[in-house]
Amino acid sequence: MTTTLHTHVPRSKLCRYNEKAVWYGDEDLVGDLLGKTGFVDVFMKQTFGVAPSVTQRRVIEAVLVTLMEHGMTPSAIAARMIYASSPENLQAGVAAGLLAVASRFVGTMEPAAELLEAIVTAGGDREDETLSREYARRIAQDFRQRRVAVPGFGHHLHRPDDPRAAALLALARECDTNGRRCRALALLSAEIDAVVGRHITINATGAIAAVLGDIGIPAPLMRGFAVLGRAAGLIAHIAEEQRDPSGRFIWDLVDGAMSEHAEPVDEPAGRRGAPVPTP
Amino acid sequence: MTTTLHTHVPRSKLCRYNEKAVWYGDEDLVGDLLGKTGFVDVFMKQTFGVAPSVTQRRVIEAVLVTLMEHGMTPSAIAARMIYASSPENLQAGVAAGLLAVASRFVGTMEPAAELLEAIVTAGGDREDETLSREYARRIAQDFRQRRVAVPGFGHHLHRPDDPRAAALLALARECDTNGRRCRALALLSAEIDAVVGRHITINATGAIAAVLGDIGIPAPLMRGFAVLGRAAGLIAHIAEEQRDPSGRFIWDLVDGAMSEHAEPVDEPAGRRGAPVPTP
Amino acid sequence: MTTTLHTHVPRSKLCRYNEKAVWYGDEDLVGDLLGKTGFVDVFMKQTFGVAPSVTQRRVIEAVLVTLMEHGMTPSAIAARMIYASSPENLQAGVAAGLLAVASRFVGTMEPAAELLEAIVTAGGDREDETLSREYARRIAQDFRQRRVAVPGFGHHLHRPDDPRAAALLALARECDTNGRRCRALALLSAEIDAVVGRHITINATGAIAAVLGDIGIPAPLMRGFAVLGRAAGLIAHIAEEQRDPSGRFIWDLVDGAMSEHAEPVDEPAGRRGAPVPTP
Amino acid sequence: MTTTLHTHVPRSKLCRYNEKAVWYGDEDLVGDLLGKTGFVDVFMKQTFGVAPSVTQRRVIEAVLVTLMEHGMTPSAIAARMIYASSPENLQAGVAAGLLAVASRFVGTMEPAAELLEAIVTAGGDREDETLSREYARRIAQDFRQRRVAVPGFGHHLHRPDDPRAAALLALARECDTNGRRCRALALLSAEIDAVVGRHITINATGAIAAVLGDIGIPAPLMRGFAVLGRAAGLIAHIAEEQRDPSGRFIWDLVDGAMSEHAEPVDEPAGRRGAPVPTP
Repeated sequence: MTTTLHTHVPRSKLCRYNEKAVWYGDEDLVGDLLGKTGFVDVFMKQTFGVAPSVTQRRVIEAVLVTLMEHGMTPSAIAARMIYASSPENLQAGVAAGLLAVASRFVGTMEPAAELLEAIVTAGGDREDETLSREYARRIAQDFRQRRVAVPGFGHHLHRPDDPRAAALLALARECDTNGRRCRALALLSAEIDAVVGRHITINATGAIAAVLGDIGIPAPLMRGFAVLGRAAGLIAHIAEEQRDPSGRFIWDLVDGAMSEHAEPVDEPAGRRGAPVPTP
Repeated sequence: MTTTLHTHVPRSKLCRYNEKAVWYGDEDLVGDLLGKTGFVDVFMKQTFGVAPSVTQRRVIEAVLVTLMEHGMTPSAIAARMIYASSPENLQAGVAAGLLAVASRFVGTMEPAAELLEAIVTAGGDREDETLSREYARRIAQDFRQRRVAVPGFGHHLHRPDDPRAAALLALARECDTNGRRCRALALLSAEIDAVVGRHITINATGAIAAVLGDIGIPAPLMRGFAVLGRAAGLIAHIAEEQRDPSGRFIWDLVDGAMSEHAEPVDEPAGRRGAPVPTP
Repeated sequence: MTTTLHTHVPRSKLCRYNEKAVWYGDEDLVGDLLGKTGFVDVFMKQTFGVAPSVTQRRVIEAVLVTLMEHGMTPSAIAARMIYASSPENLQAGVAAGLLAVASRFVGTMEPAAELLEAIVTAGGDREDETLSREYARRIAQDFRQRRVAVPGFGHHLHRPDDPRAAALLALARECDTNGRRCRALALLSAEIDAVVGRHITINATGAIAAVLGDIGIPAPLMRGFAVLGRAAGLIAHIAEEQRDPSGRFIWDLVDGAMSEHAEPVDEPAGRRGAPVPTP
Repeated sequence: MTTTLHTHVPRSKLCRYNEKAVWYGDEDLVGDLLGKTGFVDVFMKQTFGVAPSVTQRRVIEAVLVTLMEHGMTPSAIAARMIYASSPENLQAGVAAGLLAVASRFVGTMEPAAELLEAIVTAGGDREDETLSREYARRIAQDFRQRRVAVPGFGHHLHRPDDPRAAALLALARECDTNGRRCRALALLSAEIDAVVGRHITINATGAIAAVLGDIGIPAPLMRGFAVLGRAAGLIAHIAEEQRDPSGRFIWDLVDGAMSEHAEPVDEPAGRRGAPVPTP
């Protein structure tokens, strides 16, 4: 049945093995990678097929570090709630928390990357800045007209500038990995400020879309950096949970604030016991 | 390669289909089930191979209802955190919340079921109550000696009795689905009270282990009832979240209580915007 | 901090409890629900605030049963892969499988429901069928022009009709729960056939959108029925996995077909052992 | 209510922020970390409170790389099934795959680490090798008597030695990060060989337990390295899935092998369409 349905058989090139060796792509895990190649380089090779340069790696690691942590976010709260309920399954806490790395959290990274790509494309092979600027102005005017924030721009807190965005763009310049997408971001920023009549923050998402795009990361995979960075951050939350558990504190805090229990107010069944004795 | 590795090919008997029909097991979905057989009956047939009797179904639905909801638990908090972060993906919120249906939440159901099974087995084919009682006493003494709660017994809140446990056991009697495991639970309860010197609550987990066991549900599948019941409850939490969102309230509440932000204390980046503009 | 941020405190009305009782909404779990109210009714009450009528329940259970099972789908394969890797965590297998209840699986249910709602709205309070038909025609023409399938219509396999869709619509008529959305579906179907020049299948998703809509289920919650129904189906897959494990068979089958292992081809590390001895 | 319940308020020390800055622990994200500190160092600092030395980092990265990838495993298959069903949610595919990082996949790492810890403890503060050897012998004899594999030992494929284990232990020696746990592993290995009468493989899990333990990683957090490493690997699988989709191929392959469809055998509903038009 399968053969009749599929003339093309997809092959995974990521890993091969036999008794004596394991290969990642064409490289011998033991002979070529262990102790010789760093985690981020192997991740990049396996994911994008090419290892980053030293300077590209600095930018990539800065992006991963930026995306790692933001305190007691919904992602961290979910991870702690699940870990407290299933403490033998660290992976379940991380998996639950990663489900928050979605439209609300990194949602604007991909559309921002696509806008920058379109501005670059408008410039053509001769990289005509006038054409790119015109395209950027149309984007700014279009979003203004629709009264919608341009993906990658604006911040309720970080004004006039987002320190992370500024730092990432400066790092890309310092590392000489900045290119047409970083320039497109600058063009778009100038046009937005002109259309709005004041300076609008370039936020971290916009900066990440530009610096990753200039390194050659396609928009549909940019979310992968948020997932990897946040996975590391969630493991740190679970480590903190092991040292100083917050699961029941959060449970009591939220239940106490949101539930209207019959008087006398009691603790939820099993709030105290571990394992909780009743469903 | 596969053929050489596997002489036995596992077959799924759950579903077949062609242009004109879909079968669940041997039954025609359209001709035999839709409009004729209820959801719980089809679930039981597909999972256990046999539909419950009318009285068994009453007990099973009571168990599912008991396991559906317990307010703002870690399971519900995790589901709401993920739904608020990924509101286009209701299933992600439910999946995250279900990961809390683990050792701490229904953890004692399976060991309780195994204890009851062992007490039944001790009675032998002649169902010798003296032998079962002796075995139950040894269990009570052993846990007492180890200063460990017997799975299915004890409750910090519901004393002297857990209303849900009493109701489920009464329902099993009323439905005449109670059998050797419910009797084993009573024997064990009496021996525990004798050993401890006062009445210890039979909790809902212990009662569910007994009533499901007497219906023929194996211990390793009992958790499935908690998963199905809680899935329904989590959908209700997400429906409430759609009507009256609590995602940001919980985020602020927990972050405000657990984080020591630099002065001046500000809202976390992106706390206000939707989609959140920065990672 | 929280108080200053939130003038509105969201309250959960789903569950309250004290020493002696647990309430779901305003009902006493023990006194009002256990043994008296079925699982689907309590689910509907908790989720939508109202219990279905007997006829509505027949339709709802038929929808849940339809969405329960479709054989060895990606959802079932993922659930079995995770269960085989974490057999002490049935809930993890179900959670993984539920993540497949997404855009590709029930993706057209919500847009289909919105189209039907729009057709109903076009008819106005006087339920003017001419206005609804005109609106339906414009939809058919618009999708035809864009060469896109109308959500809820078309099937590569079930032609000319989808037996499940026909059965669900017939059941709604029999139960007298059909209303303006079922009529809107018929209008839209007639206009699509006229525009295309041949009969296009009304698929199960379109029928479910209509029959649930006429019962008063809002489009953003329709996915909840797919989640609940499929949760039951995935538990049945895990039960079958317990009886006749397929985890390693699937692993070998897929790995054998997609990997190009170094000669001599060997089993993956740990393919045999349980627990797998190496990462 | 909360205050009365909790005298201790857990605080998260992982992240603080205000308008102008974000801190990870006591470090300014922008001023101290971005472009200056690598991803793995920040992960280690946040998780364990201390940055690794250069040589420790080499060992840690080697462990992460070893755990990243093993081809078309259940973890990768689950991730691809979910991604194919929810391609707008890369994070859901990774989350599903991470749920396989459980008892069967890294299950022996933690018990292996505990055995090594116990052997070290037996040696006392004077690191008495005779006492440690005696303890190791008792472990070997005990497992032999119970006919159970010692966690961290044995491999069906890699014989007499696991190239990854040998490489990781050699790297620890080269980096001078090896200590009492690596010595305990060698002692245990010698005693097992003596008891069994032939050489038993030290597998990668055993080696990782030893080298991470000597760096100071507690057993309950070792699984975090498997989670982080595998998260990177699963992103690579999803990147490959974007380039060369295997979702439907795997679906057809498994369904074709495991389902007994009514003749004429047809494709499952919606196998072709995207989005799949029917549930």
